[in-house]
Amino acid sequence: MEYTLDSQKSKVVVTRDLGTDVLGRLSENPFVDMVVWPQDCLCDRDWLLENVEGADGLVVMLTDKAGIIKWNLSRSYVMDTAGANLKVVSTMSVGYEHVDLAGLAKRGVRLGYTPDVLNDAVADLSVMLALMAGRNGGEALVHVKNGEWPNDSWSPFSWCGSQLSGTAGRPRTVGFLGFGRIAQATLNRLVGFGISRCVYTTRIGSLPKRDLEESLTEKYRGVNPAFEGVRHVDLKTLARESDVLFVLAPGGAETRHVVDEELLREMKRTSVLVNTSRGSLVDSDALAKALRQGWIWGAGLDVVEGEPNISADHPLVQEPRCVIMPHIGSATFATRKDMANLAVTNVLAVLSNEPMVSEKSVSQDKVETWNN
Amino acid sequence: MEYTLDSQKSKVVVTRDLGTDVLGRLSENPFVDMVVWPQDCLCDRDWLLENVEGADGLVVMLTDKAGIIKWNLSRSYVMDTAGANLKVVSTMSVGYEHVDLAGLAKRGVRLGYTPDVLNDAVADLSVMLALMAGRNGGEALVHVKNGEWPNDSWSPFSWCGSQLSGTAGRPRTVGFLGFGRIAQATLNRLVGFGISRCVYTTRIGSLPKRDLEESLTEKYRGVNPAFEGVRHVDLKTLARESDVLFVLAPGGAETRHVVDEELLREMKRTSVLVNTSRGSLVDSDALAKALRQGWIWGAGLDVVEGEPNISADHPLVQEPRCVIMPHIGSATFATRKDMANLAVTNVLAVLSNEPMVSEKSVSQDKVETWNN
Repeated sequence: MEYTLDSQKSKVVVTRDLGTDVLGRLSENPFVDMVVWPQDCLCDRDWLLENVEGADGLVVMLTDKAGIIKWNLSRSYVMDTAGANLKVVSTMSVGYEHVDLAGLAKRGVRLGYTPDVLNDAVADLSVMLALMAGRNGGEALVHVKNGEWPNDSWSPFSWCGSQLSGTAGRPRTVGFLGFGRIAQATLNRLVGFGISRCVYTTRIGSLPKRDLEESLTEKYRGVNPAFEGVRHVDLKTLARESDVLFVLAPGGAETRHVVDEELLREMKRTSVLVNTSRGSLVDSDALAKALRQGWIWGAGLDVVEGEPNISADHPLVQEPRCVIMPHIGSATFATRKDMANLAVTNVLAVLSNEPMVSEKSVSQDKVETWNN
Repeated sequence: MEYTLDSQKSKVVVTRDLGTDVLGRLSENPFVDMVVWPQDCLCDRDWLLENVEGADGLVVMLTDKAGIIKWNLSRSYVMDTAGANLKVVSTMSVGYEHVDLAGLAKRGVRLGYTPDVLNDAVADLSVMLALMAGRNGGEALVHVKNGEWPNDSWSPFSWCGSQLSGTAGRPRTVGFLGFGRIAQATLNRLVGFGISRCVYTTRIGSLPKRDLEESLTEKYRGVNPAFEGVRHVDLKTLARESDVLFVLAPGGAETRHVVDEELLREMKRTSVLVNTSRGSLVDSDALAKALRQGWIWGAGLDVVEGEPNISADHPLVQEPRCVIMPHIGSATFATRKDMANLAVTNVLAVLSNEPMVSEKSVSQDKVETWNN
C-alpha cells in the first residue's frame, strides 16, 4: 500500500483493543499515529472526546452504541470534536445502527463496515441451532448437567425429536425468510443432510432470483440427487412448507415482528424456527405461545428482542424447546479476527486514497432491503 | 408377503409397545398371534417367561439387557422357555450385546437387527455435537438459562470458539476413527461447511478403501472446489491433523480406550473430539484431563463409559467445554419408527420363509471389525 500523505502522519483512534496481530498493522505503519482505548471494556466517553480531536480515522464497535446511549451523547458530537480531518469511520460489524449516517454524509466522512467475512460463522451457528431445536439439544444437555441421566428409563420414543435430515421417502424442506449470502451459505451446508427442497421469501415487491434458483438447483443435484430445487414463495407458503424456517433478513422497522402469531399458526407442528439475524423480526410473546401450545416443535435463537436484557423468567427462556444463544453468531476466533482486520483495512484504504473493501454508502437514508 | 404357515398361526412376543402403526402390522396379520408387554417400562421377567412359551418370534430392545442383568437371568433361559418353535429373535437396535449369539446358533435361531436406518439421525447428531463443542454451545445455553446474559460485556473475542467451517485461506480437516456408513454420512454433511480434507483410520491391519477415497473425492470436488480429498492415515496422524475428530467405531474390548491420554496429547489445541458410537472407546479421565489442561478445545459426547450412571459430579460433566447428550443418537420419530418397522419386518420375513432385510450371522463369535 502506497501512502500519499507525506506531509504528516494520519491519526487513527480505535475504541477497543483488537489484539496485537491486528493493531500491529496500524501501530507499525510509519504513516499512522494510532491511539487505542486501553481497557478491556466499553470505551469511556471522556477518553474518546479527549482523543478523537484531529483524528483522520475512527475504528468503532457495534457496542459503542450502548455507550453513546448511556452517555446521552449526540452521536454527531464525536464527529464535531474530531473536526475537519475526519475522513473515515470504520465499524467492526455488519450492522451500522450505532452510526449517524446523516452526520457522516453532511461532513463527507465515509463509512466502512465488515459484511461477508462472518457469513460462514453465522451459517454454522444457524445449522447448530436447527439441530439443537429439533433434537431437544437444550433439554438433554441440562438433563445430563443436572445429573438426571441415571434416572432415564429408555422407551422406543423417549427423547425423540424432529429430524433435520431427509431419509428415503421423507422429503424435507428448508425455508429462508431473506435469501442473502448468509442464507445461501446455510443452504450450502444443508444440502448434504439430504434436504430435498428449498423455499425462500424476500421483501414484498422484490423479484424472485430466477438465475440464482437455477444455478443452485443444478449445483446441488450433483451432490444430492433428491434435491428438487430452490423456489421463491410468499410468506404464508414459506410458513406452511418449511420443516425448518431460517430467519435471515435485516432488522429495522420494516421487518419488525414479521414472525408473528399469524405466521407461526401456519407452520407445521413438527417444524423448527431459527433466528440468527435480529431479535426484532420475531414477536417473542407469539413464539412463546406457539411453543407452549405446540404449534411448532422447537426454536433456536441467537438473537432475542430486547437483548441482552433477557432474564431467566423471560417467556422464551422458560420454554424447554427454545434454545437460546447470547448472540454469538460471528463469535469464532477466525471470523472476529477477519472482521477486525477488515475494519483496519477499510481505514487504511481511505487514508491512502484506495478503494475500501467494504464501504457502506451514506448518501441515502435507507440503503438496505430485507432480502438481505 | 405370502405366508407359508397355514396350519396354525405364528406367535410373536414383543417386549415393548412400538406404537399402533408399527404393531398393527403384526396384530392385523391373520397369520400372527401377537403378544405385547403392555406397560411403558422395561419388560417384566415373569411376564416374559410366562408369555414366551411356544413363541415363533421374539422382538426385543437393546435395554432388555439391563433387565436381564437386573433379574440375574441366564440369557439362554428365555430361549429354553420359548422352546423348539422359536425361529427368530429380532432386536430393535444396531447393537446385539444383549443377545446370546452362541445360544441362538446352538438352537438354529436367527437374529435380526436394525442397522443403517439410523445412520442419518446419528450423523445429524454428530454434526450438532461438533458445532456445539466448537462454539461453546453448552456454556452459552446454560448462561442464558441462568439469566446471566444481561451481565455480558461484549469484547471482540468474547464467547469466541473454534470454527467448524473453513474460510478462505484456512483449510479445515475432519478425521474419522472408523469409516463406515455413519462416518461417511457425517462427511457428506460436512463438505458443505467448506471442509478441505478428510482423514480416516480403520482397524489395524485393515486396508485403505482406495476406491471409496477416489469416488468420494470426485463427488465432493463438484460441490466444494476446495475439497482436497479423503486419505487413510495411522492413528497418530489422525490425531495430529484433525480439526474435528469423530469417533465412529464399534465398541467392545478391541476398541476400549482407543482415545487415551497419548492420543489426546497429539491433538491440536484448537481441535474438537466427538463420540457418537460407544462410551468405551474414550478414556473419560484422560479426556477430562485434556479439557482441563487445554490439550484440545472441546468435546461433544452422546455416549459416556458407564452410562446412564453419569452423575452431576462426573469429571466430564464438570468440564464446561464438554457437551454431553444422554445417548440420543437415533432418537428421532422418523428413525425410531423405521427401526421398529424393520424389527417387525425381520420377524415376518423369517416366519414367511423370506430373506431378512437385516440379518446378523450368529455362526461366528466375532463378526464385526472396528472399521465400522
